[in-house]
Amino acid sequence: MYILRTIKPEIRILAFDDGPFEFGTRGKDVLIGTIFRGGLFLDGVLKTDIEIDGDDAEKKIIDLVNRTKHKDQLRVIMLDGITFAGLNIVNIKKIFESTHLPVIVINRKMPDFEKFLGALRRSGNKRGLECVEAAGPVYKFEIDKKYIYFQFAGCDKDVAERVIKISTTHAAIPEPLRIAHLIATAIVRGESIGRA
Amino acid sequence: MYILRTIKPEIRILAFDDGPFEFGTRGKDVLIGTIFRGGLFLDGVLKTDIEIDGDDAEKKIIDLVNRTKHKDQLRVIMLDGITFAGLNIVNIKKIFESTHLPVIVINRKMPDFEKFLGALRRSGNKRGLECVEAAGPVYKFEIDKKYIYFQFAGCDKDVAERVIKISTTHAAIPEPLRIAHLIATAIVRGESIGRA
Repeated sequence: MYILRTIKPEIRILAFDDGPFEFGTRGKDVLIGTIFRGGLFLDGVLKTDIEIDGDDAEKKIIDLVNRTKHKDQLRVIMLDGITFAGLNIVNIKKIFESTHLPVIVINRKMPDFEKFLGALRRSGNKRGLECVEAAGPVYKFEIDKKYIYFQFAGCDKDVAERVIKISTTHAAIPEPLRIAHLIATAIVRGESIGRA
Repeated sequence: MYILRTIKPEIRILAFDDGPFEFGTRGKDVLIGTIFRGGLFLDGVLKTDIEIDGDDAEKKIIDLVNRTKHKDQLRVIMLDGITFAGLNIVNIKKIFESTHLPVIVINRKMPDFEKFLGALRRSGNKRGLECVEAAGPVYKFEIDKKYIYFQFAGCDKDVAERVIKISTTHAAIPEPLRIAHLIATAIVRGESIGRA
Protein backbone atom coordinates (compact mmCIF):
# COMPACT_ATOMS: atom_id res chain seq x y z
CA MET A 1 0.00 0.00 0.00
CA TYR A 2 1.28 3.41 -1.04
CA ILE A 3 1.75 5.82 1.85
CA LEU A 4 1.85 9.53 1.16
CA ARG A 5 4.55 11.22 3.23
CA THR A 6 6.58 13.56 1.04
CA ILE A 7 4.65 16.58 -0.23
CA LYS A 8 6.51 18.19 -3.13
CA PRO A 9 5.48 21.57 -4.55
CA GLU A 10 4.48 19.80 -7.77
CA ILE A 11 2.59 16.92 -6.11
CA ARG A 12 -0.04 15.69 -8.60
CA ILE A 13 -3.56 16.26 -7.32
CA LEU A 14 -6.79 15.17 -9.00
CA ALA A 15 -9.68 17.34 -7.77
CA PHE A 16 -13.40 16.88 -8.47
CA ASP A 17 -16.32 19.29 -8.50
CA ASP A 18 -19.78 19.09 -10.05
CA GLY A 19 -21.72 21.62 -12.08
CA PRO A 20 -24.48 23.81 -10.69
CA PHE A 21 -28.04 22.63 -11.24
CA GLU A 22 -31.50 23.75 -10.26
CA PHE A 23 -32.93 22.11 -7.14
CA GLY A 24 -35.71 19.73 -8.08
CA THR A 25 -34.45 18.95 -11.59
CA ARG A 26 -33.76 15.39 -12.72
CA GLY A 27 -31.28 13.94 -15.16
CA LYS A 28 -27.53 14.32 -15.36
CA ASP A 29 -25.03 16.79 -13.96
CA VAL A 30 -21.45 17.26 -15.14
CA LEU A 31 -18.51 16.11 -12.98
CA ILE A 32 -15.11 17.68 -13.70
CA GLY A 33 -11.71 16.49 -12.54
CA THR A 34 -8.63 18.70 -12.74
CA ILE A 35 -5.13 17.26 -12.62
CA PHE A 36 -2.86 19.85 -11.04
CA ARG A 37 0.77 20.12 -10.12
CA GLY A 38 0.40 21.29 -6.53
CA GLY A 39 -1.34 24.65 -6.71
CA LEU A 40 0.75 25.66 -9.71
CA PHE A 41 -0.76 24.66 -13.00
CA LEU A 42 -3.13 22.40 -14.81
CA ASP A 43 -1.89 19.20 -16.47
CA GLY A 44 -5.18 17.72 -17.58
CA VAL A 45 -8.95 17.78 -17.36
CA LEU A 46 -11.38 14.86 -16.97
CA LYS A 47 -15.10 14.97 -17.59
CA THR A 48 -18.01 12.63 -17.01
CA ASP A 49 -21.64 12.93 -15.99
CA ILE A 50 -23.43 11.71 -12.90
CA GLU A 51 -27.08 11.24 -12.05
CA ILE A 52 -28.78 13.99 -10.06
CA ASP A 53 -29.67 12.48 -6.66
CA GLY A 54 -28.28 9.15 -7.95
CA ASP A 55 -25.57 6.96 -6.43
CA ASP A 56 -23.05 6.67 -9.27
CA ALA A 57 -20.63 9.50 -8.29
CA GLU A 58 -18.39 7.21 -6.20
CA LYS A 59 -18.00 4.65 -8.97
CA LYS A 60 -17.49 7.33 -11.65
CA ILE A 61 -14.77 9.00 -9.57
CA ILE A 62 -12.99 5.67 -8.98
CA ASP A 63 -13.17 4.85 -12.70
CA LEU A 64 -11.85 8.27 -13.79
CA VAL A 65 -8.95 8.05 -11.32
CA ASN A 66 -7.97 4.50 -12.26
CA ARG A 67 -8.31 5.01 -16.02
CA THR A 68 -6.57 8.36 -16.55
CA LYS A 69 -3.23 8.26 -18.31
CA HIS A 70 -1.96 10.43 -15.41
CA LYS A 71 -2.68 7.69 -12.81
CA ASP A 72 0.97 6.80 -12.15
CA GLN A 73 1.79 10.42 -11.31
CA LEU A 74 -1.23 11.01 -9.05
CA ARG A 75 -0.61 11.22 -5.30
CA VAL A 76 -3.88 12.49 -3.82
CA ILE A 77 -7.57 13.04 -4.62
CA MET A 78 -9.51 16.15 -3.56
CA LEU A 79 -13.27 16.46 -3.44
CA ASP A 80 -15.54 19.47 -3.01
CA GLY A 81 -17.65 17.91 -0.25
CA ILE A 82 -18.90 14.33 -0.21
CA THR A 83 -22.15 15.05 -2.05
CA PHE A 84 -22.33 15.74 -5.78
CA ALA A 85 -25.32 16.52 -8.01
CA GLY A 86 -27.71 16.81 -5.09
CA LEU A 87 -27.57 13.70 -2.92
CA ASN A 88 -25.15 11.61 -4.97
CA ILE A 89 -22.98 10.83 -1.94
CA VAL A 90 -19.54 9.19 -1.99
CA ASN A 91 -17.72 7.01 0.52
CA ILE A 92 -14.16 8.34 0.72
CA LYS A 93 -12.84 5.20 2.45
CA LYS A 94 -14.06 3.16 -0.51
CA ILE A 95 -12.51 5.63 -2.96
CA PHE A 96 -9.20 5.30 -1.09
CA GLU A 97 -9.42 1.48 -1.06
CA SER A 98 -10.27 1.31 -4.77
CA THR A 99 -7.66 3.80 -6.01
CA HIS A 100 -4.93 3.47 -3.33
CA LEU A 101 -4.81 7.27 -3.20
CA PRO A 102 -5.59 9.36 -0.11
CA VAL A 103 -8.76 11.45 -0.36
CA ILE A 104 -9.09 14.97 1.06
CA VAL A 105 -12.57 16.50 1.25
CA ILE A 106 -12.84 20.29 1.33
CA ASN A 107 -15.91 22.09 2.61
CA ARG A 108 -16.18 25.84 2.17
CA LYS A 109 -18.51 25.98 5.16
CA MET A 110 -18.82 23.83 8.26
CA PRO A 111 -21.21 21.06 7.18
CA ASP A 112 -24.57 21.18 8.99
CA PHE A 113 -24.51 17.54 10.09
CA GLU A 114 -27.61 17.74 12.22
CA LYS A 115 -29.73 18.83 9.27
CA PHE A 116 -27.99 16.53 6.80
CA LEU A 117 -28.11 13.39 8.98
CA GLY A 118 -31.74 14.14 9.83
CA ALA A 119 -32.65 14.25 6.12
CA LEU A 120 -30.76 11.01 5.43
CA ARG A 121 -32.45 9.23 8.38
CA ARG A 122 -35.93 10.44 7.41
CA SER A 123 -35.48 9.17 3.86
CA GLY A 124 -34.01 5.86 5.12
CA ASN A 125 -30.77 6.51 3.17
CA LYS A 126 -28.55 3.92 4.87
CA ARG A 127 -25.76 4.26 2.30
CA GLY A 128 -25.70 8.03 2.77
CA LEU A 129 -25.35 7.61 6.54
CA GLU A 130 -22.44 5.22 6.01
CA CYS A 131 -20.75 7.74 3.69
CA VAL A 132 -21.03 10.49 6.29
CA GLU A 133 -19.52 8.19 8.91
CA ALA A 134 -16.72 7.10 6.56
CA ALA A 135 -15.76 10.74 5.94
CA GLY A 136 -14.82 11.07 9.61
CA PRO A 137 -14.51 14.17 11.77
CA VAL A 138 -14.30 17.67 10.28
CA TYR A 139 -11.21 19.81 10.91
CA LYS A 140 -10.70 23.44 10.12
CA PHE A 141 -7.83 25.05 8.29
CA GLU A 142 -7.02 28.77 8.23
CA ILE A 143 -6.20 30.56 4.98
CA ASP A 144 -5.75 34.34 5.11
CA LYS A 145 -7.95 34.64 8.20
CA LYS A 146 -10.69 32.57 6.53
CA TYR A 147 -11.49 28.99 7.44
CA ILE A 148 -12.12 26.02 5.23
CA TYR A 149 -13.13 22.65 6.61
CA PHE A 150 -11.64 19.31 5.68
CA GLN A 151 -11.98 15.56 6.14
CA PHE A 152 -9.68 12.85 4.87
CA ALA A 153 -9.14 9.12 4.35
CA GLY A 154 -5.94 7.20 3.65
CA CYS A 155 -3.49 9.70 5.13
CA ASP A 156 -2.63 11.52 8.34
CA LYS A 157 -4.20 14.84 9.32
CA ASP A 158 -0.76 16.42 9.06
CA VAL A 159 -0.36 15.23 5.46
CA ALA A 160 -3.84 16.50 4.54
CA GLU A 161 -2.98 19.91 5.98
CA ARG A 162 0.29 20.11 4.06
CA VAL A 163 -1.44 19.20 0.79
CA ILE A 164 -4.10 21.87 1.39
CA LYS A 165 -1.44 24.44 2.22
CA ILE A 166 0.75 23.74 -0.80
CA SER A 167 -2.19 23.72 -3.24
CA THR A 168 -3.86 26.91 -2.01
CA THR A 169 -2.14 29.51 -4.14
CA HIS A 170 -4.62 32.09 -5.49
CA ALA A 171 -7.76 32.06 -3.33
CA ALA A 172 -9.13 30.74 -0.05
CA ILE A 173 -9.61 27.32 -1.61
CA PRO A 174 -7.12 24.82 -3.10
CA GLU A 175 -6.39 25.80 -6.70
CA PRO A 176 -7.33 22.38 -8.24
CA LEU A 177 -10.85 22.69 -6.75
CA ARG A 178 -11.17 26.37 -7.73
CA ILE A 179 -10.44 25.49 -11.35
CA ALA A 180 -12.68 22.39 -11.37
CA HIS A 181 -15.47 24.67 -10.18
CA LEU A 182 -14.81 27.29 -12.90
CA ILE A 183 -14.83 24.64 -15.63
CA ALA A 184 -17.93 22.78 -14.39
CA THR A 185 -19.83 26.04 -14.04
CA ALA A 186 -18.89 27.24 -17.54
CA ILE A 187 -20.03 23.93 -19.04
CA VAL A 188 -23.47 24.30 -17.45
CA ARG A 189 -23.97 28.07 -17.56
CA GLY A 190 -21.69 29.27 -20.38
CA GLU A 191 -19.77 31.58 -18.02
CA SER A 192 -18.11 30.60 -14.78
CA ILE A 193 -18.66 32.52 -11.60
CA GLY A 194 -15.91 32.38 -9.01
CA ARG A 195 -16.97 31.47 -5.49
CA ALA A 196 -13.74 31.97 -3.62
CA MET B 1 -9.78 54.01 -28.98
CA TYR B 2 -7.92 52.03 -26.33
CA ILE B 3 -4.26 51.47 -27.18
CA LEU B 4 -2.39 48.64 -25.50
CA ARG B 5 1.08 49.74 -24.47
CA THR B 6 1.80 48.62 -20.91
CA ILE B 7 2.09 44.85 -20.50
CA LYS B 8 1.77 43.95 -16.83
CA PRO B 9 2.51 40.42 -15.56
CA GLU B 10 -1.18 40.07 -14.69
CA ILE B 11 -2.54 41.48 -17.97
CA ARG B 12 -5.99 39.96 -18.53
CA ILE B 13 -6.08 37.77 -21.63
CA LEU B 14 -9.13 36.04 -23.09
CA ALA B 15 -8.02 33.08 -25.21
CA PHE B 16 -10.18 30.87 -27.45
CA ASP B 17 -9.80 27.32 -28.71
CA ASP B 18 -12.29 24.84 -30.14
CA GLY B 19 -12.85 21.19 -29.37
CA PRO B 20 -11.57 18.32 -31.51
CA PHE B 21 -14.01 16.83 -33.99
CA GLU B 22 -13.95 14.17 -36.65
CA PHE B 23 -13.34 15.43 -40.18
CA GLY B 24 -16.51 15.14 -42.22
CA THR B 25 -18.94 15.37 -39.29
CA ARG B 26 -21.65 18.01 -39.18
CA GLY B 27 -23.30 19.84 -36.34
CA LYS B 28 -21.79 21.83 -33.49
CA ASP B 29 -18.36 22.03 -31.93
CA VAL B 30 -17.55 23.54 -28.53
CA LEU B 31 -15.69 26.86 -28.27
CA ILE B 32 -13.94 27.60 -24.96
CA GLY B 33 -12.62 30.95 -23.74
CA THR B 34 -10.22 31.17 -20.80
CA ILE B 35 -9.72 34.42 -18.92
CA PHE B 36 -6.17 34.46 -17.60
CA ARG B 37 -4.01 36.80 -15.61
CA GLY B 38 -0.94 36.85 -17.84
CA GLY B 39 0.39 33.31 -17.90
CA LEU B 40 -0.26 32.93 -14.18
CA PHE B 41 -3.73 31.70 -13.36
CA LEU B 42 -7.28 31.29 -14.52
CA ASP B 43 -9.94 33.83 -13.58
CA GLY B 44 -12.87 32.51 -15.56
CA VAL B 45 -14.09 30.23 -18.30
CA LEU B 46 -16.54 30.95 -21.13
CA LYS B 47 -18.30 28.34 -23.26
CA THR B 48 -20.43 28.42 -26.37
CA ASP B 49 -20.89 26.28 -29.45
CA ILE B 50 -20.20 27.00 -33.09
CA GLU B 51 -21.26 25.33 -36.29
CA ILE B 52 -18.83 22.92 -37.94
CA ASP B 53 -17.76 24.55 -41.25
CA GLY B 54 -20.19 27.40 -40.47
CA ASP B 55 -19.51 31.15 -40.27
CA ASP B 56 -20.68 32.01 -36.75
CA ALA B 57 -17.35 31.78 -34.85
CA GLU B 58 -16.48 35.46 -35.39
CA LYS B 59 -19.84 36.69 -34.07
CA LYS B 60 -19.83 34.22 -31.16
CA ILE B 61 -16.34 35.37 -30.12
CA ILE B 62 -17.33 39.04 -30.31
CA ASP B 63 -20.47 38.36 -28.25
CA LEU B 64 -18.61 36.37 -25.57
CA VAL B 65 -15.96 39.10 -25.25
CA ASN B 66 -18.44 41.96 -25.04
CA ARG B 67 -20.84 40.23 -22.65
CA THR B 68 -18.48 38.72 -20.09
CA LYS B 69 -18.50 40.31 -16.66
CA HIS B 70 -14.69 40.44 -17.01
CA LYS B 71 -14.85 42.78 -20.06
CA ASP B 72 -13.58 45.89 -18.25
CA GLN B 73 -10.43 44.05 -17.13
CA LEU B 74 -9.66 42.45 -20.50
CA ARG B 75 -6.73 43.86 -22.46
CA VAL B 76 -6.14 41.39 -25.27
CA ILE B 77 -7.73 38.46 -27.13
CA MET B 78 -5.79 35.34 -28.22
CA LEU B 79 -6.94 32.83 -30.81
CA ASP B 80 -5.61 29.40 -31.72
CA GLY B 81 -5.48 30.08 -35.46
CA ILE B 82 -8.15 31.91 -37.46
CA THR B 83 -10.18 28.79 -38.27
CA PHE B 84 -12.38 27.02 -35.75
CA ALA B 85 -14.55 23.91 -36.12
CA GLY B 86 -13.26 23.14 -39.59
CA LEU B 87 -13.65 26.14 -41.88
CA ASN B 88 -15.46 28.50 -39.49
CA ILE B 89 -13.04 31.35 -40.23
CA VAL B 90 -12.80 34.65 -38.32
CA ASN B 91 -11.74 38.15 -39.37
CA ILE B 92 -9.43 39.44 -36.64
CA LYS B 93 -9.70 43.05 -37.81
CA LYS B 94 -13.46 42.85 -37.34
CA ILE B 95 -13.04 41.24 -33.92
CA PHE B 96 -10.70 44.12 -32.97
CA GLU B 97 -13.14 46.75 -34.29
CA SER B 98 -16.13 45.19 -32.52
CA THR B 99 -14.44 44.62 -29.15
CA HIS B 100 -11.80 47.39 -29.11
CA LEU B 101 -9.30 44.77 -27.96
CA PRO B 102 -6.17 43.74 -29.87
CA VAL B 103 -6.22 40.20 -31.24
CA ILE B 104 -3.19 37.89 -31.31
CA VAL B 105 -3.41 34.71 -33.37
CA ILE B 106 -1.11 31.83 -32.44
CA ASN B 107 -0.26 29.03 -34.85
CA ARG B 108 1.66 26.03 -33.57
CA LYS B 109 2.92 25.40 -37.11
CA MET B 110 3.59 27.73 -40.00
CA PRO B 111 0.23 27.93 -41.81
CA ASP B 112 0.30 26.34 -45.27
CA PHE B 113 -1.16 29.35 -47.08
CA GLU B 114 -0.75 27.95 -50.55
CA LYS B 115 -2.88 24.92 -49.75
CA PHE B 116 -5.37 26.91 -47.65
CA LEU B 117 -5.86 29.77 -50.13
CA GLY B 118 -6.17 27.25 -52.96
CA ALA B 119 -8.98 25.45 -51.14
CA LEU B 120 -10.76 28.73 -50.38
CA ARG B 121 -10.48 29.88 -54.00
CA ARG B 122 -11.70 26.56 -55.40
CA SER B 123 -14.77 26.65 -53.15
CA GLY B 124 -15.39 30.35 -53.98
CA ASN B 125 -15.13 31.27 -50.29
CA LYS B 126 -14.71 35.06 -50.64
CA ARG B 127 -15.25 35.73 -46.96
CA GLY B 128 -12.55 33.19 -46.06
CA LEU B 129 -10.09 34.88 -48.40
CA GLU B 130 -10.84 38.24 -46.77
CA CYS B 131 -10.24 36.73 -43.32
CA VAL B 132 -6.84 35.38 -44.36
CA GLU B 133 -5.90 38.80 -45.74
CA ALA B 134 -7.15 40.59 -42.61
CA ALA B 135 -4.96 38.36 -40.41
CA GLY B 136 -1.87 39.84 -42.08
CA PRO B 137 1.65 38.47 -42.30
CA VAL B 138 2.88 35.63 -40.10
CA TYR B 139 5.79 36.19 -37.73
CA LYS B 140 7.70 33.62 -35.73
CA PHE B 141 8.51 33.66 -32.06
CA GLU B 142 11.07 31.45 -30.32
CA ILE B 143 10.27 29.67 -27.07
CA ASP B 144 12.88 27.28 -25.68
CA LYS B 145 14.37 26.66 -29.13
CA LYS B 146 10.92 25.93 -30.58
CA TYR B 147 9.01 28.32 -32.82
CA ILE B 148 5.40 29.37 -32.72
CA TYR B 149 3.87 31.59 -35.39
CA PHE B 150 1.72 34.64 -34.76
CA GLN B 151 -0.39 37.27 -36.44
CA PHE B 152 -2.10 40.26 -34.87
CA ALA B 153 -4.57 43.11 -35.29
CA GLY B 154 -5.04 46.26 -33.23
CA CYS B 155 -1.56 46.44 -31.73
CA ASP B 156 2.12 46.67 -32.69
CA LYS B 157 4.24 43.62 -33.37
CA ASP B 158 6.34 44.51 -30.34
CA VAL B 159 3.28 44.50 -28.10
CA ALA B 160 2.12 41.14 -29.49
CA GLU B 161 5.55 39.67 -28.79
CA ARG B 162 5.59 40.94 -25.24
CA VAL B 163 2.11 39.50 -24.56
CA ILE B 164 3.19 36.12 -25.96
CA LYS B 165 6.36 36.16 -23.87
CA ILE B 166 4.65 37.08 -20.61
CA SER B 167 1.87 34.52 -21.04
CA THR B 168 4.06 31.57 -22.03
CA THR B 169 4.86 30.08 -18.64
CA HIS B 170 4.61 26.29 -18.67
CA ALA B 171 4.90 25.05 -22.25
CA ALA B 172 5.82 26.16 -25.76
CA ILE B 173 2.42 27.85 -26.13
CA PRO B 174 0.80 30.73 -24.19
CA GLU B 175 -0.81 29.34 -21.04
CA PRO B 176 -4.34 30.73 -21.73
CA LEU B 177 -4.45 28.80 -25.03
CA ARG B 178 -2.95 25.66 -23.48
CA ILE B 179 -5.71 25.60 -20.88
CA ALA B 180 -8.51 26.45 -23.37
CA HIS B 181 -7.31 23.46 -25.39
CA LEU B 182 -7.30 21.12 -22.34
CA ILE B 183 -10.84 22.16 -21.37
CA ALA B 184 -12.32 21.98 -24.89
CA THR B 185 -10.75 18.56 -25.44
CA ALA B 186 -12.05 17.20 -22.12
CA ILE B 187 -15.58 18.40 -22.94
CA VAL B 188 -15.55 16.51 -26.24
CA ARG B 189 -13.47 13.45 -25.35
CA GLY B 190 -13.83 13.11 -21.56
CA GLU B 191 -10.05 13.38 -21.06
CA SER B 192 -7.81 16.11 -22.32
CA ILE B 193 -4.63 15.39 -24.21
CA GLY B 194 -1.90 18.02 -24.05
CA ARG B 195 -0.46 19.14 -27.38
CA ALA B 196 2.37 21.33 -26.19
